Amino acid sequence: MNFTEKLHNVVNKNQSLLCVGLDVAVERLPAHVRGRENPALEFARNIVEATADLVCAYKLNFAFYEAMGAGGWETLRRILEVIPADIATIGDAKRGDIGNTSEMYARAIFEDLGFDAATAAPFMGRDSVQPFLDRREKCTFFLTLTSNPGARDFLYLDVGGKPFYEKVAETVVNWNENGNCGFVVGATHPEELAGIRETVGDAPILIPGIGAQGGSVEASVRAGCSARGDGAIFNVSRGVIYASDGEDYADAARNRAMEIRNEINKYRRG
Amino acid sequence: MNFTEKLHNVVNKNQSLLCVGLDVAVERLPAHVRGRENPALEFARNIVEATADLVCAYKLNFAFYEAMGAGGWETLRRILEVIPADIATIGDAKRGDIGNTSEMYARAIFEDLGFDAATAAPFMGRDSVQPFLDRREKCTFFLTLTSNPGARDFLYLDVGGKPFYEKVAETVVNWNENGNCGFVVGATHPEELAGIRETVGDAPILIPGIGAQGGSVEASVRAGCSARGDGAIFNVSRGVIYASDGEDYADAARNRAMEIRNEINKYRRG
Repeated sequence: MNFTEKLHNVVNKNQSLLCVGLDVAVERLPAHVRGRENPALEFARNIVEATADLVCAYKLNFAFYEAMGAGGWETLRRILEVIPADIATIGDAKRGDIGNTSEMYARAIFEDLGFDAATAAPFMGRDSVQPFLDRREKCTFFLTLTSNPGARDFLYLDVGGKPFYEKVAETVVNWNENGNCGFVVGATHPEELAGIRETVGDAPILIPGIGAQGGSVEASVRAGCSARGDGAIFNVSRGVIYASDGEDYADAARNRAMEIRNEINKYRRG
Repeated sequence: MNFTEKLHNVVNKNQSLLCVGLDVAVERLPAHVRGRENPALEFARNIVEATADLVCAYKLNFAFYEAMGAGGWETLRRILEVIPADIATIGDAKRGDIGNTSEMYARAIFEDLGFDAATAAPFMGRDSVQPFLDRREKCTFFLTLTSNPGARDFLYLDVGGKPFYEKVAETVVNWNENGNCGFVVGATHPEELAGIRETVGDAPILIPGIGAQGGSVEASVRAGCSARGDGAIFNVSRGVIYASDGEDYADAARNRAMEIRNEINKYRRG
């Protein structure tokens, strides 16, 4: 089963376009968890158990696990093991490198760790991401327009009458012979998101930035979903997993995930 | 001592602009090493011992260590420990991400692992790399023009009458208030390298692509060095570390490193 089918199935089953970002930083965990043997794993397991029927995907940001040092990679792997098999997993590594290095990254994310999807940077061009494109059953979400202020520095530069991010989207569409490319577009840019949705057709778009980063749910859902009412994956990290810093953190995460899932569904077409 | 001073000192001491890339892939190691307890560490230690008086820096590409799985991070850390303290270390991670994620990456590379320098992707804009810029004693080499064919896809796009990579170089120069920015420019583009050198003044340029990727040493040295005859760091990975796949691999690496160092010095100005 390829990524598109897996995503379609879980979106239908859980009636959810919500992805929860398991960006676990030990110093932010509830005090009673921080003293445990593997606080990050215990916390993530409880979050997953509390939210698994409300999400279509979990995203793990590699930076948080690298910051844990030598044990981080193993923690990341063990968190993946507690995620139910029918839920999509996204390795948020934003890798981009040339030649055999790109192959090493693709192998680590897709084979060694077993993620269903990854994020990657397209800016070094097609051969720099060919090993990702070659994984036909997997999906790679390419950075297209990010939600931060610095997106203005390069991604909006005019290239032949269109913004650079639009050129990125068009180019990745041309790379998408295996139907396994997705796009990362921040929720803080709903107008641009609508344009990118037109360019990329039904391809999946991963949309961070609702919640902590201030993007509007209504505007992002209307702009980001495909004509079928899906194809968009809305990621929320801190807003869900740190909904409470008390002993009720898992229940609080569940309540917050349900609220966001339902708010997204309110604006879905179809 | 900041990175610039450290680099200057070791360049003078070893009379070398050569950086050896410790891109260790266990399956490529000499057969007699592959059976050892930690083949990557043993191999890297022997390469370092054989070449440490011939180089200005060692570069470790994170992809190779991530591909080792859970033990990779620890192997990377232990290799760093066997590098003499006066030689510059470059963490080739090519990270780029937004907000607090960028801070996590900078902390992992500079504090947790203790690298002197890192590579990073500038394409998401200034705030995405601010944590790197804030490390005043460290150096961050920003991807500017890569040595692969796919560089044509985006990095040469015309933006207001100049190529995108030139705009990247100019923008990073503006970010360089702490004098701790460097640039990554492939040796396969000597003409463009000369233009970037003009734009960035004396800033360090990390130049991969001589050797395995076919860039000319003479052209790259003439184009890449600053007016003082330094400021360029030439990285060779496979060409040095896999110079022999026999029991003489460390001697062979030493001989090859000496050849390349001397060839680079032949064309240095000043």
